[in-house]
This record gives sequence, structure tokens and C-alpha cells, in this order.
Amino acid sequence: MIVVMRPGVEDGLIERVIARLVSAGCDVHRSTGAERTLLGAIGVTAEMDLADFEVLPGVERVLRVSTPYKLVSRRFRPEGSRIELGRDVVIGGEEVVVMAGPGQVESEEQIHRTARDVARAGAKVLRASAFTPRSRPYAFPGLGEQGLQWLRAAAREYRLLVASEVMAPDHIDTVAGYADLLLVGGRHMQNHGLLREVGAAGKPVILKRNIGATIEDWLLAAEYVAVAGNDRIILCERGIRTFETATRYTMDLAAIAVVHERSHLPVIADPSYGTGLRDKIAPMARAAVAAGADGLLIEVHCDADEARSDAAQTLYPEEFQQLMDQLRIIVPALGRSL
Amino acid sequence: MIVVMRPGVEDGLIERVIARLVSAGCDVHRSTGAERTLLGAIGVTAEMDLADFEVLPGVERVLRVSTPYKLVSRRFRPEGSRIELGRDVVIGGEEVVVMAGPGQVESEEQIHRTARDVARAGAKVLRASAFTPRSRPYAFPGLGEQGLQWLRAAAREYRLLVASEVMAPDHIDTVAGYADLLLVGGRHMQNHGLLREVGAAGKPVILKRNIGATIEDWLLAAEYVAVAGNDRIILCERGIRTFETATRYTMDLAAIAVVHERSHLPVIADPSYGTGLRDKIAPMARAAVAAGADGLLIEVHCDADEARSDAAQTLYPEEFQQLMDQLRIIVPALGRSL
Amino acid sequence: MIVVMRPGVEDGLIERVIARLVSAGCDVHRSTGAERTLLGAIGVTAEMDLADFEVLPGVERVLRVSTPYKLVSRRFRPEGSRIELGRDVVIGGEEVVVMAGPGQVESEEQIHRTARDVARAGAKVLRASAFTPRSRPYAFPGLGEQGLQWLRAAAREYRLLVASEVMAPDHIDTVAGYADLLLVGGRHMQNHGLLREVGAAGKPVILKRNIGATIEDWLLAAEYVAVAGNDRIILCERGIRTFETATRYTMDLAAIAVVHERSHLPVIADPSYGTGLRDKIAPMARAAVAAGADGLLIEVHCDADEARSDAAQTLYPEEFQQLMDQLRIIVPALGRSL
Amino acid sequence: MIVVMRPGVEDGLIERVIARLVSAGCDVHRSTGAERTLLGAIGVTAEMDLADFEVLPGVERVLRVSTPYKLVSRRFRPEGSRIELGRDVVIGGEEVVVMAGPGQVESEEQIHRTARDVARAGAKVLRASAFTPRSRPYAFPGLGEQGLQWLRAAAREYRLLVASEVMAPDHIDTVAGYADLLLVGGRHMQNHGLLREVGAAGKPVILKRNIGATIEDWLLAAEYVAVAGNDRIILCERGIRTFETATRYTMDLAAIAVVHERSHLPVIADPSYGTGLRDKIAPMARAAVAAGADGLLIEVHCDADEARSDAAQTLYPEEFQQLMDQLRIIVPALGRSL
Repeated sequence: MIVVMRPGVEDGLIERVIARLVSAGCDVHRSTGAERTLLGAIGVTAEMDLADFEVLPGVERVLRVSTPYKLVSRRFRPEGSRIELGRDVVIGGEEVVVMAGPGQVESEEQIHRTARDVARAGAKVLRASAFTPRSRPYAFPGLGEQGLQWLRAAAREYRLLVASEVMAPDHIDTVAGYADLLLVGGRHMQNHGLLREVGAAGKPVILKRNIGATIEDWLLAAEYVAVAGNDRIILCERGIRTFETATRYTMDLAAIAVVHERSHLPVIADPSYGTGLRDKIAPMARAAVAAGADGLLIEVHCDADEARSDAAQTLYPEEFQQLMDQLRIIVPALGRSL
Repeated sequence: MIVVMRPGVEDGLIERVIARLVSAGCDVHRSTGAERTLLGAIGVTAEMDLADFEVLPGVERVLRVSTPYKLVSRRFRPEGSRIELGRDVVIGGEEVVVMAGPGQVESEEQIHRTARDVARAGAKVLRASAFTPRSRPYAFPGLGEQGLQWLRAAAREYRLLVASEVMAPDHIDTVAGYADLLLVGGRHMQNHGLLREVGAAGKPVILKRNIGATIEDWLLAAEYVAVAGNDRIILCERGIRTFETATRYTMDLAAIAVVHERSHLPVIADPSYGTGLRDKIAPMARAAVAAGADGLLIEVHCDADEARSDAAQTLYPEEFQQLMDQLRIIVPALGRSL
Repeated sequence: MIVVMRPGVEDGLIERVIARLVSAGCDVHRSTGAERTLLGAIGVTAEMDLADFEVLPGVERVLRVSTPYKLVSRRFRPEGSRIELGRDVVIGGEEVVVMAGPGQVESEEQIHRTARDVARAGAKVLRASAFTPRSRPYAFPGLGEQGLQWLRAAAREYRLLVASEVMAPDHIDTVAGYADLLLVGGRHMQNHGLLREVGAAGKPVILKRNIGATIEDWLLAAEYVAVAGNDRIILCERGIRTFETATRYTMDLAAIAVVHERSHLPVIADPSYGTGLRDKIAPMARAAVAAGADGLLIEVHCDADEARSDAAQTLYPEEFQQLMDQLRIIVPALGRSL
Repeated sequence: MIVVMRPGVEDGLIERVIARLVSAGCDVHRSTGAERTLLGAIGVTAEMDLADFEVLPGVERVLRVSTPYKLVSRRFRPEGSRIELGRDVVIGGEEVVVMAGPGQVESEEQIHRTARDVARAGAKVLRASAFTPRSRPYAFPGLGEQGLQWLRAAAREYRLLVASEVMAPDHIDTVAGYADLLLVGGRHMQNHGLLREVGAAGKPVILKRNIGATIEDWLLAAEYVAVAGNDRIILCERGIRTFETATRYTMDLAAIAVVHERSHLPVIADPSYGTGLRDKIAPMARAAVAAGADGLLIEVHCDADEARSDAAQTLYPEEFQQLMDQLRIIVPALGRSL
């Protein structure tokens, strides 16, 4: 941490800041320039709040040098995390892991037909929600545990893993009873009560980025899960909110490379949520993989136009098959397989 | 709802869209132009999802005419809502209601001294959290019920009402036992489980805007609370996330006028969270009131530099007193009192 | 400037960075911590590009301590700038200076009637463009010099100053022949050729913020004008582009306080452009003044619905009169007059 | 265009709006619903300003159905534009065209060495500026015509085409004398005087997106160039400004697919400007091509660390070579060649 003092402050104020830093456990180096004094504090921990120093009299600004997270930082595990999901599927390694399925479980037949189609195309994980977050209070609420049972059965038949959404602490045990991966939606990225419970549930977690979150906010949310005891976290980029409205959100694909630099966690992308438009899903799926994503989360429905939620962001099985064929051409450019 | 067909589509596709609209309960008016056909659907309800029509073959775009919320819309109560908070304090009427206090209850002495100071300056509501949302996993977590007891006692002594934060469904009963207003932070604006419980708790609710939420998203979140049975909702503008980093967020003060146009709910502003900088609080508090805000939420601490959270966004009591004096000059310009 | 070295880099790389800093004229202080080394460089000038150091091997990040502008910085003139505009009107002092008029000069009668109306209400400057920037290639292009003659004549009759827009270097002499203030629109904020010419024209300049510009970008653009020899610059906040579309742009009123802290230049606000909506102009005009703006720029047209451009962001004279009455109540709260 | 009337307005106001629409040349269809009346106007031209109708009494909103541009719209040329650049290079067809070179021409040796390196790796166009836009007033201003001569000579030697930047109308003739493509930077995307001159210059134009521009704004800027007589326009996505600061801008790669849907113009991407970070260029270059870009614009310098501008966003020749090898693997997935 660097404390930048205002130009021309009296020495007493500088001494007071130094004393505060030392009492917080830091070593302090003082650089006295012609115009202003800088204090370099060594030994800053993730527990310290920089704003506590920014408000001290005479201080102009405080610059952070270290990251505010540690368990999820790249430095904590320089070689990167390889997370075993089950059925010999590993994310964070050479393989690009594709997770696909409908937004919601709607019926036994729907989830079986979709599972068959995505498995045939090469997906390794079946994704579908049974408890559904909706931004409109009048929308279809989901089938609950019955939906999870159908989901699990369909996945078993086609040798797929299951990813399903958790929205509230009291759903976690139920969902974790059927799913191999717990999915935390972007809206709940800073629901710290939920993050702690998910962290304690003992299953790999997919943590989606909130549309208003910086990469640092997102890594801090992952740190919450890690502090609760679970470091099997998969980050998922699904777009941030910008002024551009031609697509629902703006996917920040450079974030994939930034996360790989700052953190050891795998990162995937969700072009269905990120674009909200069926014909933009394949281009952005290809782009995410080309940018280095460790996997994809894609909405596919056996009869996409009839989907009960978010039909517009859902691929038909044949479109998904075509996308997978394209991805198989692309992945060798990154030294990966699909 | 207007369905814009692609130029030159065959008639069969148009007929199919009309059939879908009629089966959804709409009357349809067809306008055939030289280039393209428009379908105007009358009778669209809040339950309908426009995207269901946008993905139909031949459709170029669907334009919404009506709002996706109804209970909170201005049309539902054209005269506006006046919400009685207790102790003869009414928000949404002539009076500008100022709510002030520390970010968190830290000690009995701290909350008593701060309550005394804000009451003396003219605040009507004492605000402080006992259960604390923090973006960093290593921060001070709050005092819990003990904090609420001290908060209530301090408010009683200085004849103030109490506003306090709820972050999880299982805190609501405890907080509602001590507080007159429940405060839902921006991070939980789309935590629908929490919104439903808060809607059922029978106390006025302050619903902060999420930093990534449009005004429409925010009104939809309020609709959730209203659907759950509680229409005593106070909206709170606290800044949106933009590319400008000189302040923590960018306060969208025009949103105050937009909300007053679209909704009957009162709207207040929180310049402490919105700016994150002590010396920007008073300018933005004055600006919010001048823009027409029905109240303010401001962080004040009897010893601001020592605040255990967010010290940088907290006023000293004397600064708060000075701000209140300025506001008393401004409010007659709007035909209001303080 | 602080150079943060990557953890564990070898000493040779650190020495190389130090050598580069010294050869660039800096004094360097080295802080060696357990994890990483920091280099504090004293003597950084505005001419230096930090990115030149950021790409050196072993460097993790470079943090700027000083500002990249100097002539417009508050430190350069701590007491602030008071700019005399003519007719005893001074901006940057106690008076809040209101500039009003139509988007464009459309006819002799239109500009005379509008001049009379805004003068009567208390405006000091008549604003109107004769050369018009339009985002649509098919729009009304402006009347050119004939428009400027009518504008000047109308201003003279009602004892107003004139502000008019410059869009291209070859218009500047013509506009400067009739106007007291040159207005540079947000679209041209980084048109450096234009900035240099405007800087050489010898008239006070209103420099609008670009919708994609940070406050720092905006001050750097002002620095361009100042470097060209003109420090009579008035900054104008007119909204930034955000995800909120209920208003055309999002006005960043906290920027007024930030500019006053960082720069000695006066700053005004343009709620007509900033909101794009007639009924949001007065609330945001009041808010800007309450936030500390040194003036306002407002579109007023004697027959607003018939305005040939941007009718939707233009006040009727009676609405403008009512706004001025409200502002007269507000300004004493800031120790100012109108 | 759809005019949405406010609920319950009297018939006279509706008739007045209809009369205005008819007098503007439109056919009007009226849909009378239980709550409100909609007016569908057929025959709206690009010359009409919707805001003129939005301010009429009784009107709630005006929804645009047609696009505000026409010459650049996909409908104007459904098969898409293939633009011949010279030396048998065509953009907008099967080939992905890579343009590479230093930010600026710095010396004869630098531009020759870089030209050799990028030609060897497979670039078809050499890009470099001789007149330089800089956001800091104290930076290196460029070599002018001498630089252009060296640039042309280097390109000739290695059989490359030349792309170079124009910043002001009076540079255009000089630059066009040496360059095959004129490059308009994002800062000048709405400098309409420059756009008109560039439109008249008779050379293909690369039009970069402004960081604050929506896709619609960008296409409108292209329309300006087309109206001036030049439809050989190549759009270039180079990032928009968002709240994420880990990269300089946020590249909106979905915009590539959106532009291909709405316009017949080719679109390329500039990951050097878009990210501002050397190690993010290759991932985003791959991603842009995988998303469907018709080409790339990349900064490469024979000695990247010593580049006189923007060194941090410049690749070394060997990094560029490696990227081109990866792109050769990727392009067949899109049925393209490199």
C-alpha cells in the first residue's frame, strides 16, 4: 500500500499516519520529494481496509499494491487449479468442458430429449434449473425437486454430469442431492449468506459474474466461497451491463485472460445469457473458446421456440451440434481438446 | 406490444404470429406497409414474456408499449403514495425526510452520541446496520441483536424512528422486532427470496437500486415486494456503476424525476454510498433534494474517522448540521419543508 | 510515480528499471519488502508516459501519483479562476451565470423573441448555434454567418452576451467575430486540431465533456487549450453514457465537486443535453446549482414544440422563468447570487 | 414508426398527431385499445426526426421501426460488400485480412524492419500513423509527410498495402497521396466535417467505433461517409468504455455479428487499442476472428519496448508470427482463409 500525502502537509500529520500504519502491523518506508511525501507500507493484509487510511488528515490518496483476495489469487497456486467434476471430466486442464441444456426443467420428456441431443454433440455436463430466478414476478417459477429428479435421471442415461442453480440457502441441500455442480447466478454473486453456504456444501461451484461487478469484485466473491472451505470454484463470464443495447449485455472476453493472470481458478463463458440472442450465441461461444475459456455454458432445448423461459437465448440441437463441430476445429489452436 | 415483421416475409408466418397472439388473449391490429407489416397487440399482461414472440420465425423485433410492472406504476395510484412511518412522519408528501446514522452499530456509546447529534440537527430516522453486508470476506461482521437493542434504545431516547438493514430471510424477524423501516441493500435488490419475505413482514421497506440496475429493473424489484403484499416501499437511488472512477459510483439524480413520473412510490437518495467520499456527500445531498427527492439517507458518525466501516463516506456531526441548514434554505424552492 | 515490481524478480531487472527512471530525470526511492519491491520515482513530469515503464520486464504495475495535466490543475491556481466574460459578467465567482437560448438560430424573429424572453427571466448569455453538429446526416445544417448576425443583433438589443458553437477550425474566425464565448461540443472534446485553434482564438471557451470521457480525460482536453495559450476555459458537464436509457445520458453531478477539487476552472452544467427530456431539465438544473455549478447552459425556444432541432430538450419561456425563480431561492444556500 | 398515445387522451390530440404524420408524408394506421391508442406510421424516411413527434401533446412515446440509416444498411445490399483494396486483397469476402504495423512511423529503419516482419508473418496491409492523435498535450506529435514517404517505401518493398490515419481535413490529401486506406480514429467518429472530406477522398476508409458510441451511432457515422459518395467503408471495433478497468476498454465482440446483421459493410477488430495490454492482444485477436471479424488491425513494432507511443499495446514480431499461426488453425472453422 502506498499512502500519498497532500503537498506541503506538516510533519506531524505524516508522523500520525506512519504511527497508524505501524500499529496495523506494517513496515513503512518514507520517500520525501520536493512536492510531496509518499509512504510505502509493507505487510498489508487482506483484512485491512484502505479507506481507513484514506480519511486520515493530510492523506491525498491510498494506492493498493497487493490484491484484496488471497486464496483465489494466482500466486496462491501458480500452476492453476484443475478441478475434477466426476466421470473423469476435469476443468482447468487441457480439455474445454461444454455444459449445455435448457434454462429450466419443464417436463420429463423435454429434459430427456435435450440430454440425448447435447450428449450426442459432445457436451459433458447437463445444465438446467429447477428453482428459477426471474426478474419478472409473474413468470413460471420452476418445478422444484421433481424437476431435479428428472434432471438426474436424464443425465444418468446419457452419462452426463449435472449442473443446477441454487438461489437461496434453504435450496442448497436439495439441489446438492442431485447435482454435481452448483451454479450461483450473477444476481447472487454478492449474496454473502448464500456464498458461505455454497462454500460449505462440498460440491464444485460455478460462480457467475454479476452484470455490475468488476473482475476484482468477482474474485472477492470467489474468495468468500474459498474462505468457507471450498476452493473448487469455476468462474463464469456472462456479460456486463454497458450502454450498448443491441445485445442484452456486453460480454467481456478479455476478462478470461485477466482472470487467468490473476487467479488460479478456471473460467468459462455463458454466451446465452451474455447476448440474449440466439444467433449471437455461436459467434460468442467460438470467441470465448478462442480467447482461452476453460469451458462453456450454453442453453439448448429440444424445441427451442417453445421453451418456457428465455427462448430467445436458446439453441436448437442442430445449431448446437454445428457449433461443437466448429469448436473442434478451433481448440487445437490453443493446444486443447474438446 | 408491437410485433415488427421482417420485410418481405410470406403471409403464412404473419398468420402464425397472429394466431399465437390471439391464443395468448390479445386483440391484434395488422398494418400492412409497402416494406413491412406491423402487428399491434392489445391486451398484453404483465405475465407475458415478449421474448416468446421475438423468436418466432419472420419476427424482426417486438416493442413493448405497456410497462412490465403494474402495482407500483404511477397509473395504479396517480395521486402518489404517502407512507406513514410512525411518530407523525410521512414520506411522499410535503416533508423531506432525512435518515441519518452510522454505517454500523459499534457500541452503546457510539450509537447514543450519534443519535443525539442527528436528532439535534433535524433527522427523523436513525439508520444503522447490525448485520452487515461486506464485499471483503475479512471485514467486521456486525454486532447482531445486541446492536439492534442499543439502536432501538438510542432512537427512543431522541424520539427517532429506526431504519436497519436486512440481508437474509432469517434475519428479517429479528430486525423487524426493533426497526420501523427495513432497508434492503442494492446487492439484494434482485434476491427474490428476500424480497418476498420482506414483502410479507408488514413494515415499510427502503429498496436501494442495484449498481447494475436500470430504473425498470428497480421498479420490477419493487413489484416483487408489492406482489407479496406490501406496498409501503421507498425507493433509494444510490448510484450506478459507470466508467467514471473519481467517485465510487455515479449518482443518477434524473432517476428521481423518472421514478416520480412512472411510479407512485416515494424516492430518496443516499449520497454516502453514491459517492463514497466525505466531501462529496453534502453537494450531492443538496442536489438530490433540489432534484425532488422525498428524503435522504446519510451516514453520520459521532467520530467519523474512527468508524469501523466505510469511514470515508461518513459525515461528522457538525458537517451534517451544516448540510441540514443548507437544505432548509433549498426546500421552499420545491414547495416543501424539512 | 510508483513502480510495483513483480514478486520475486531478480535484482538485475530492478536495477534496469531504476536506470531508466534516473535517465528520465527522476529520483528513485527503493522499498524492499518481503514479497516485492516498490520504486518511488520523484520528479515525474507531465511529458512522461507511464506506459513506457509498465512494459519493462519485471514490472507488475505503475501507479500515477501526480496528475497528467498541470496548467489547469487546482494547484496551479489554488484560489480558482474568475473569468470575465464582458458586460461585468464574471464566472467562477459568487454569481451563478445562466446561459440560455435555442439550439439553433432559425430566423430573425425566433432569435429576437427568445432573446427577449431569456433576458427578462435573468439569463446573462444568449446561446445558439449557427453551424450545427448533427448525428444524422439528413438533418437541418444551420444558417451559417447570417444566423450569427441575427444572433448578435438580438443579444445586443437585450444586453446579453453571446455563446455559439464551433465545430471545425475554419469556422472559428467567423464565429469569434460575433460571439463572446466559443462553445466546443462534447463530440469535439478530443479533436485536438480544433482545441489548439480554439486555444489561439483569444475568447473564453466552453468545453463540454464527451459522453465517453472520464474527468481526467476532460481536464487533459482543457490542458490542450491552455497549452495553446488560452486559460479562460469553462468546463461543462452534459452527461456521460451509461446503461440507463430512461434519459439520453446520465448527468454526473458529483463531477462538479470533483472538478472544483482538482482544477481551478469554473464548471457549468447543461441539463438540456444531459437529459434530452423537457420535463427533466428543471430538476437537473436545480440539482446542478445545488451541487455547486458555476452556471448553466439551457435550451429555451420561444415556441419550443416547433424548434427545428432537439425540440424535446427545449424549455418554453414560461418554464424557464419558473426555473429561474426556483434557482433564486436555492443559491443563497451556497452563499451565491443569481 | 409507432406513436404511443398516453392512456385516456382526448380525441382532438390524437387527430392532431395524425395530421402531423400525414403532412410529413406518412400513411397512418390507428389502433384503438381499451387503454390506449397506437398510431402506426408507414413511410417514415431517414430525414425525419422522431423527437419532433415525441414532444407533441398527448404522446407518451415514439418507437422507431425502421433504421435511421439507409445506404449502409444490410437491406441496401443484402449480399454484403466486398471491397477491393488493391494487390488482389479483398475484404468482406472469404479472406480474413490482417493489417499490422507500429503505432507511428518513427524512423526509416523502424518501419522497414517492421514491414519485413509483418509481411513475413502474413499481414497484407502495413498500418502506421504519421500524424498522431494524442490524449496528452505533451506527447510525440509524429513525423508528418516524411513519415508517409518511408511508410510507402517500406510497404512497396514487402508488397504490402498501406493504411494510415487522418485526423484533420487538411491532412487528407497528403495522407491519401501515400496510403491505400484512410483510417479514422474513434475520437473522430463523429467529427462530421472530417467524415465528409474522407467520404470525398476516393479511398477505402476504416472507421473506428468511438468508445462512447452505440452500434447505431457508429452506423450513422458510416452513413455520413456514404452520403458523401464513398461506400468503401470498413468498420473497426476497438472497445467501448465500461466500468471495468483491468483492460483499457471493453471489446464488444458481439458487435461484429450485430453489424453483419444490420449492415453490408465489413467489420474488423483492433485488439491493441481495445485492450491496451500486450498479453491480451493475441487472445482477443483470436476471439475476434472466431466471432466472425473480416480482418484485424494490430500494433507490431520491430522493437516493441522502445516504441515511442503506446508500447504497452504493441506486439513483438515473434508474438505476431505465433498469433498468425494460431489464426490459420481457426479460420477454417468459419469457412475462411487467412
